[in-house]
Amino acid sequence: MNDVKENSWEIIRFDGDSKSVLKEDVAIEKPFTIVLNGEEFATIVCTPTDLQDLIIGFLAAEGVIRFYDEIKSISIDEKLGFSYVQLNKDLDVIQLDHSKRFIGSCCGKSRQFYFKSDVRTAKTITSKLTISVNQCFTLMKELQTKSEQFIKTGGVHNAALATQNELIMIRSDIGRHNALDKLYGHVIQNRIGLSDKLVVFSGRISSEVLLKISKMGVGILISKSAPTDLALQLADDLGITAIGFARGNRLNIYTHPYRISEASNHP
Amino acid sequence: MNDVKENSWEIIRFDGDSKSVLKEDVAIEKPFTIVLNGEEFATIVCTPTDLQDLIIGFLAAEGVIRFYDEIKSISIDEKLGFSYVQLNKDLDVIQLDHSKRFIGSCCGKSRQFYFKSDVRTAKTITSKLTISVNQCFTLMKELQTKSEQFIKTGGVHNAALATQNELIMIRSDIGRHNALDKLYGHVIQNRIGLSDKLVVFSGRISSEVLLKISKMGVGILISKSAPTDLALQLADDLGITAIGFARGNRLNIYTHPYRISEASNHP
Repeated sequence: MNDVKENSWEIIRFDGDSKSVLKEDVAIEKPFTIVLNGEEFATIVCTPTDLQDLIIGFLAAEGVIRFYDEIKSISIDEKLGFSYVQLNKDLDVIQLDHSKRFIGSCCGKSRQFYFKSDVRTAKTITSKLTISVNQCFTLMKELQTKSEQFIKTGGVHNAALATQNELIMIRSDIGRHNALDKLYGHVIQNRIGLSDKLVVFSGRISSEVLLKISKMGVGILISKSAPTDLALQLADDLGITAIGFARGNRLNIYTHPYRISEASNHP
Repeated sequence: MNDVKENSWEIIRFDGDSKSVLKEDVAIEKPFTIVLNGEEFATIVCTPTDLQDLIIGFLAAEGVIRFYDEIKSISIDEKLGFSYVQLNKDLDVIQLDHSKRFIGSCCGKSRQFYFKSDVRTAKTITSKLTISVNQCFTLMKELQTKSEQFIKTGGVHNAALATQNELIMIRSDIGRHNALDKLYGHVIQNRIGLSDKLVVFSGRISSEVLLKISKMGVGILISKSAPTDLALQLADDLGITAIGFARGNRLNIYTHPYRISEASNHP
């Protein structure tokens, strides 16, 4: 895990009437453009750490690749902010509308994916992993402690892959989605099985976050923040246990409580 | 201003060892697809309030329109999540690559815009508006107080247009960018001049946020959260006074302090 990179800025601070001029560290943000098979594909604005993880995770989350060996070569020009990715396949026509809205024929259902790529890649989770409430508290505390060690700037989100007992790896980024993509990219490159893993996350549970968790194949998401109703509908449909507002010794279980041992006798 | 819409969910809460089953309000999130001159243009995931403001602000921020009268008609199908916009002009070819990366020839400069549409629409701010530190504190407190009145879900960002003395309007959304686009759309529809206004914002100052402020033509941005270094480079170049970490009686001035009365004698 790299440090989150920071730049120092001279600022004027007011604390009540007291004025001081000081240096403060500010999180670095940098645009990276992915050139895919010679064509400009997307530009990601990110914290420039774990870039190969980020780019591979992003391509997987977008449905462009499913496995690492679909990538023939990848090179990163960190200075200019470009990444050149060559796939072992042509970009088929389906990629061209990967960001087009998908309208299912089943209007009455809550499971309304909204991008065509999501329909291909989101999957229902059948993981049998269970965890206790106290293990959830401990994992979130570990995320916060470990994050504080290398983040002074206050503007960064953290995502961690974990077992019930400990965090395995943490990725950080100014963008919530990038932090998850960095996890995903690492997982794909190292062929890590996720049916017995969970994700601990500092950011809000939006529908996009939930869909990423589903694509990764993870059954339990523990977040410090609030969920949205669309994310919860998706979690309900896709079999994911969504836990929000995990702070101190409190948390809320929103969906599929059967994976949480103390909640599984829920009427 | 509409209320932020919420849905009620049944949850299981753990507080230490104590377990309770209760109903909790969760922020609504909904996808809206903009169909522009008959072509699918973009899908925005948002809080479904102030939708016309959002769509018009989004199109302006993307560089598609500059004035309200470029829109011939706009209709919104709130149930299915579609908006049909007809412009008084064809979408010229420049729109087709509005999201392409722009690489300036001046590599040594910090002003590195990264989308071609930004190059056309971001502008240097020459506003002569000034404000005192205490007015900044008061405006941020007002934003937090007014936001709390209609937000129970914890997952929403707020952006307000203000004079030195009071907030004029607030817009809210689960997406930081959407909250700003809703402000911008309202401004464009009502032809509100912004050289004597400022923006008070709950979210982080990323480069994208800063570029939106520049496109609106606002000279002072007060945020509760952290900035990134790229946003500060842009603020420096574009003449915008960026204030972050405005909490209680504290704030940091990062760029162009001359608009803040107590700071303007900064050496």
